[in-house]
Amino acid sequence: MNMETLSVIKIGGNIIDDEAKLAPFLVEFAAVKGRKVLVHGGGKLATKLAATLGVQQQLVDGRRITDAETLKIVTMVYAGFINKNIVAQLQGLGCNALGLCGADGNALRAHKRGQDARGDGIDYGFVGDVDQVDSDFLSGLLRQGKSLVFAPITHDGRGQLLNTNADTIAQEIARGLSADFEVSLVYSFEKSGVLMDAEDDRSVISRIDRASYGSLKERQVIFAGMIPKLDNAFAALDSGVGKVIIGKAEQLQQLLAGKAGTTIVHE
Amino acid sequence: MNMETLSVIKIGGNIIDDEAKLAPFLVEFAAVKGRKVLVHGGGKLATKLAATLGVQQQLVDGRRITDAETLKIVTMVYAGFINKNIVAQLQGLGCNALGLCGADGNALRAHKRGQDARGDGIDYGFVGDVDQVDSDFLSGLLRQGKSLVFAPITHDGRGQLLNTNADTIAQEIARGLSADFEVSLVYSFEKSGVLMDAEDDRSVISRIDRASYGSLKERQVIFAGMIPKLDNAFAALDSGVGKVIIGKAEQLQQLLAGKAGTTIVHE
Repeated sequence: MNMETLSVIKIGGNIIDDEAKLAPFLVEFAAVKGRKVLVHGGGKLATKLAATLGVQQQLVDGRRITDAETLKIVTMVYAGFINKNIVAQLQGLGCNALGLCGADGNALRAHKRGQDARGDGIDYGFVGDVDQVDSDFLSGLLRQGKSLVFAPITHDGRGQLLNTNADTIAQEIARGLSADFEVSLVYSFEKSGVLMDAEDDRSVISRIDRASYGSLKERQVIFAGMIPKLDNAFAALDSGVGKVIIGKAEQLQQLLAGKAGTTIVHE
Repeated sequence: MNMETLSVIKIGGNIIDDEAKLAPFLVEFAAVKGRKVLVHGGGKLATKLAATLGVQQQLVDGRRITDAETLKIVTMVYAGFINKNIVAQLQGLGCNALGLCGADGNALRAHKRGQDARGDGIDYGFVGDVDQVDSDFLSGLLRQGKSLVFAPITHDGRGQLLNTNADTIAQEIARGLSADFEVSLVYSFEKSGVLMDAEDDRSVISRIDRASYGSLKERQVIFAGMIPKLDNAFAALDSGVGKVIIGKAEQLQQLLAGKAGTTIVHE
């Protein structure tokens, strides 16, 4: 069966915070063929606004806690300012974008972390882990020609908004839509991809499959922070995502064409 | 032809600012039969945030100007904090709400005020007057069972968000959807309706048509600020809206049933 393609692209704070990077990225995003979803992280704007408003960042064991005031700030900045500005800019580029958070249309339902057996005992405050994606709703919007722009905010279905990791949102959407589309999941990143030599941005490993991943881990080419990223990539592939691509957002078209970044595939 | 009913309900800042009023209002809204749209104004939160951030409110001839910093604040507060909290609360009440601003899906396109012949020569800054409603898009969402929640922000189709009067947004949506639905447009208000005696909240005129409007104006029962409101109501009726209702948001069900407030009809 020849399914339509869907690109789910997560951009990080380094793009959001820098208008000189965001504007050309959005031009590239608008030009991506096929159906597409953009998931944006937060960037430093929320942290700056919190500081200006005198809202203290709470940390427990080095992990950031989302208290009620912080949730209010991230909801304003992520779902308001960043999301709507990206949508308006994409509209100006002829891309019919629609901004959503997980509460909108019950697109992404989550539960407050720590309220289940998976919890590590830390109270992260208003932080949510995704339970359910309304793939029919999202597929319908995509098939109508809308490009979806997701802010990293979900809800618990009982009236509470929750702060949610943008990488996780991208992965859940990619998984949830993999029955309806041939999905590429792109994680943008500061570096050019997974590197053979962490110090050399030109040493990109262009393709990793499960066999080569095992060998790269064994030889300790891949270590530390890259391991959970790649484990997540393989988990996405296991649940139906066609490929996962890691690289620089600035090279979006090349990433999707397999001409830049690291493409992770099953085998 | 028996068309589906649609209620377009505009709530003002007095409801938004007061959790003790907002929560029961949302229970009533969730219970409204038929398709529905909620348009919310801003309330005092944006003004408070601007004051905390040291952003001066600019006034020209007594009219508030939306400069770039103010637009940023209203986008955060209206399209972010207020919109997403209302959506999450409605989801918690079993109402499948979807929050939108005019840029989302190009729902409401506007132009910057003062850039056309209708302008009064004042530069209001980033303030938009609505040109176009994508009624197919909105009807489709409503028919899928979504209840739409609109923040009073639009865009110009060229990348610029614009601050837009919530009463106008409600009216444009009501007009735009009147070919697809039997539309009731509800303007919520501090008073119980249009009053025979401005000092007596029990003196509600329950029904006004064009003939009685002329007579009420002649006798100066209706004067000053009520005249533009009622002129707008008749303009909405002229463009296909079934009825316009003015009254207290707290009495929503009774307003829609014609048991409270003032219902304005053609004849």
